[in-house]
Formats: sequence, structure tokens, C-alpha cells
Amino acid sequence: MSTLLKDRFADPSRGVYFVGTTPPKDSTDMEQVSEIANKLLERLSAIDYDGLIVYDIQDESSRISAPRPFPFMQTHDPRAYSKLLSEKSKHPVITYKSVSQRGKAEFDEWLTQAQDVYGVKDIVLVGSPSSAKDVALPLAKAYDALAEHPRDFHLGGVTIAERHAKKADEHQRLMQKTAQGCSYFISQAVYNPQATIDLISRYARECRTQGIKPKRIILTFAPCGSAKTLEFMEWLGISVPEATRYRILDASSPLGESIRVCRNSLEQILDACIHLGVPLGLNIESLTNRKEEIDAAVRLFKLLKATMDLRLAEEAVEAI
Amino acid sequence: MSTLLKDRFADPSRGVYFVGTTPPKDSTDMEQVSEIANKLLERLSAIDYDGLIVYDIQDESSRISAPRPFPFMQTHDPRAYSKLLSEKSKHPVITYKSVSQRGKAEFDEWLTQAQDVYGVKDIVLVGSPSSAKDVALPLAKAYDALAEHPRDFHLGGVTIAERHAKKADEHQRLMQKTAQGCSYFISQAVYNPQATIDLISRYARECRTQGIKPKRIILTFAPCGSAKTLEFMEWLGISVPEATRYRILDASSPLGESIRVCRNSLEQILDACIHLGVPLGLNIESLTNRKEEIDAAVRLFKLLKATMDLRLAEEAVEAI
Repeated sequence: MSTLLKDRFADPSRGVYFVGTTPPKDSTDMEQVSEIANKLLERLSAIDYDGLIVYDIQDESSRISAPRPFPFMQTHDPRAYSKLLSEKSKHPVITYKSVSQRGKAEFDEWLTQAQDVYGVKDIVLVGSPSSAKDVALPLAKAYDALAEHPRDFHLGGVTIAERHAKKADEHQRLMQKTAQGCSYFISQAVYNPQATIDLISRYARECRTQGIKPKRIILTFAPCGSAKTLEFMEWLGISVPEATRYRILDASSPLGESIRVCRNSLEQILDACIHLGVPLGLNIESLTNRKEEIDAAVRLFKLLKATMDLRLAEEAVEAI
Repeated sequence: MSTLLKDRFADPSRGVYFVGTTPPKDSTDMEQVSEIANKLLERLSAIDYDGLIVYDIQDESSRISAPRPFPFMQTHDPRAYSKLLSEKSKHPVITYKSVSQRGKAEFDEWLTQAQDVYGVKDIVLVGSPSSAKDVALPLAKAYDALAEHPRDFHLGGVTIAERHAKKADEHQRLMQKTAQGCSYFISQAVYNPQATIDLISRYARECRTQGIKPKRIILTFAPCGSAKTLEFMEWLGISVPEATRYRILDASSPLGESIRVCRNSLEQILDACIHLGVPLGLNIESLTNRKEEIDAAVRLFKLLKATMDLRLAEEAVEAI
């Protein structure tokens, strides 16, 4: 099956650029949901993005004992919000699906409805946040169910460079997920570029060794304007080096400083990895609903997209 | 009247990006014209552009005694080619119109047809290439006719930095053309950044003095891969500094070197002018039909767009 995004992902000479968002909370009525979507898309009218990403937020309190800095709230169905955003924006939308809570039959039905009712074709499956919890459907079984399912999807996987920093095996997870049907990967928010550089470099080497064409890795970045957002990032498992913490919190404008940190991280990643033959992309999200962080995310998008586009264009010109 | 481009031009925080082209020559049959348009748009599928520009090529031999390096050939009606490109690409198209050869009645009819038959809304009027020749309709009279015409257009003007280098009065011409209805300007190909910097700086000062909001200036760039193309550029009146001539012609890859020259020129212009409050844009064209120059134009587009986008994004982030 061909999707707009699949075609766009196929050209390694170009970057792909996304904006990540979460559905409004469950208690929001549909009129308000539509209003929220309009507001988001109005903000995005100033930027050229290839698509949107809609997350499937789960209560991850089983993963960690610390209290969640922003309380967990059940959201609207990501498929429904994807459909709404896709119709309003005329852009493709990647829909996340957390698979662990329900069994195979319910997952099969989710997939059928996703495509037939909501027009969802680009999906990313997410496993259980912790290994301790009861898991109705492990991620590997979900991949099997997807492979056997009559509908065809453009499947992506999540990648977490922080796991690579700890266990140095995330590249193997990418190879395995590729075998399980993933044709692109989306990272967790990057605040520790070295972990990402190590992962991409190791993944490129592994692909070369196995004679496999590297899949596209979409790097997520998010601005951070306050101590509370930083605390939330750490709660989510995003690695923030100590010096970076201080650099952001001690700055006269933490938000502006976090954007400079993100840009610097991307530059380091491009310096180290642009020659490795792994096609890259960007996903910019705001981790909170604060107006200034959402506005900062739009500026961050422009800055990082132009940074990556320029590097790719320079590469192409060097070849002349 | 609102057009897609008018709305996009209205946001000074973003650049606008065009690709310039000429209609196929008159003798080409319609099937081939359609084929040529398809080929062009296929090449452009790798880039994000805001619109196309279709030139109205005239026999400018009255302007200069030197022979034209590439022979002049009558082309298809630019309005018809604009319509075709607009339909196929789903992008807006700016159509040039050379006004001097015919009288007012014919120009009025041209305008009516442009909008009613060809859906043309964004136009740039071009005056006589030389003052010596018989002029049926001077540019000023054409502007008058347009102002009185029942149809409404999104009007742009041509600007030539080389005139500023000689007479230091091009900024006044921009003010005058603004009074005559122009709301944006498109430059001749830039190979002498200093002339462009002088023009933009002087224009910004003049606007400040008169309390007028500066109009958008779209800078044209074109790759140059051979001595013949360079000769053609000079025949067209494009100023190429002596050192730049040698830099391009003596390079192992003149085409690659010309791209580096263009990028360096844009960097210089942005360094000097980005703070001046004059919204900018880019127009990339290939001056010949040579495959390698057309491909180079696509790469040049990517490089210069990312360069300008990055500078604008950096400006926006500095403000946080």
C-alpha cells in the first residue's frame, strides 16, 4: 500500500518534518475539540510541515514511582482526532497506538476501524511502559497481529536513544522492529545528543554489516520553558545532561535557551551522522499546553527544519 | 482582491519562494507543451515552492548591438502556460506581461482575458527593453490602464539593481511603482550582491523617511554552468563582477562554483539587509534548457531557501 508519507519517506535526499500533538482530554465536547484543532492548525499555518503525529497518552505511573508532574488525563480516541486533523489540515497524520492494555481480538478490531472508519494508514505501535505491569498484548504479538491483518498499514516504531545509552542494544531493537514490519522510527525528545549520535552511528554500522538499507529516523525535539516542564521531561524518561539543566534553568529566558540547546543538539547530530546514510526527519512537539511553549515549538520547528534542510542541500551541492 | 500569494506575502516573518520559467517556443504543439510542463513539475516535486513565475520573453535586440547568444524565439502565450502550470501543479503562478508592443485597447483586452479565460490574478508588467524603440504603450500608461480596468490584479514590478549601481535612483523607481499599484518586486538575476545591498538599503531608508511599509523584494538567482550562459547573462544586462567571472569559468565545476557564488551572494545580502524590515523572497530560474543547469537550479533552490529560512528562524528565536 502506498501512502503520501511512504512516498515522501522514500527520497533519502530530503528531510521529513512533523508536528506532534495529543488529543484533547476525554471530557472536552466535540465542538471544543474542533475548536482546539482549528487553533492548532492556525498556529501551524506559518510553517511547512509534511504531516502531524497524534500520540496515544497512557497512564505510565506503573513505570515510575515519582508523581507525574502534570496529572494524567484520559484523552479522546487518537484515531478520531487524527481524522479530524487530517480533514482540516489536508495533511497526512501518523497515529500512535498503545497496544498493551487490550487483547488481540480488540486490537484487530481497532485496526479495521482505524482504516475503515477513520482513514488511518500511518501508525506507530507502542508497547507497555513497564515490564512489571500486566500486559494483555505484548508489542511483538501486536506486530504479528498487524502482519496477519487484512488491512495494510505504513508502520513505524518508537526508538529511545536513552535505552542505547544504558544497554547499547537499541540498534538491535531497530533491526528487530524492521523485521517485524517497521519502515521508520520516531525518537523520544532529544536533549542528550550523544546518546542519539551513538544510536544512529551503531545502527548505520549494523545495517552496513547486514546489507540492509537504513530506515528513516525521525528525531523529536521539544522546547522547555520552566522547571516544571523539565521535571516532566525527566519523568517521561528523557535524558537531560546536568549542565543542560542548569543552562536552561539559569538562563534569563529558559524557553529561548532550550531552543538554542535543541538547535545545538541537532547540529551535533548532523555533524556526526549526515554522512552515515540514515535518512532523518524531525518531529517538533510542545510537552505542555502553555501558550508560550506552543509558540516556541513553532519557532523551533522553523529553526530546526531550516538547519536540516540547509545541511542536506549543502550535501547535494558538494556532489556537483 | 485576495489571492493565495497576496495572503502569503502579507506575513513578513516568512520568505516566499518561486521558480521562474519560460513558456515553450511557439512551434511546440500542445501535447508537447503539456509534456514539457509535466517534466518541469516532476523535477520540482522534490522542493517546496510557493509558486511559479512565467516570463514573457521579448526580442530585446533593440537594447543592445551584440548578438543574442541564444537566438530569440517567439513563445506560447504566457497566460496559457500559466494556466496549464497552475492546474497541473495546484500552485499559484505569477505571469509576466511585456506591455510596450501594443496599444491600450489591446492591453485592456489582454487583462480581461487573462483573468476570465486563463484565471491569471498575479501579474508583473514589464516596460520596453530600450527607450529608443517605438513604444505603443509606455509602462506608466499600462499602470494607468490597469488601475482603471474593471478586473483586479495582484500587481508586481521588476527591479534592476544594476540600474541602482549606475544611477542610484532605483529606490525611487520602487516608490513610484508602488504608487502605481505594485505591491511586490522581482529582481533580475543577482551576481553582484553589492548592487542589491545598496538598492535594498536605500529603499529601506526611503520607506522610513516617507513612513511607508516596504514592499516585498523577490531576489532572482540562476546557476551558470558555461561560458555561453555567462555571455547570455551579460547580454541580458546582469552585472557579473570580473573576479566572479574568473571564479566560475576557471573552476573545475563551473556549475557547482556558480551555486557557491549565489549562496555567498545571498549570505552577504542577508547579513546586510535582514534587519532592515524589507520582506524578501527568492526566485530561482535556469537561464537555459540544459538538463544540468535545470537540475542545478533545483539544488540551488533548496540551498538558498534553507539559507533564507534559517536566517529568518534565527531572527525569530533571538526575539524570545
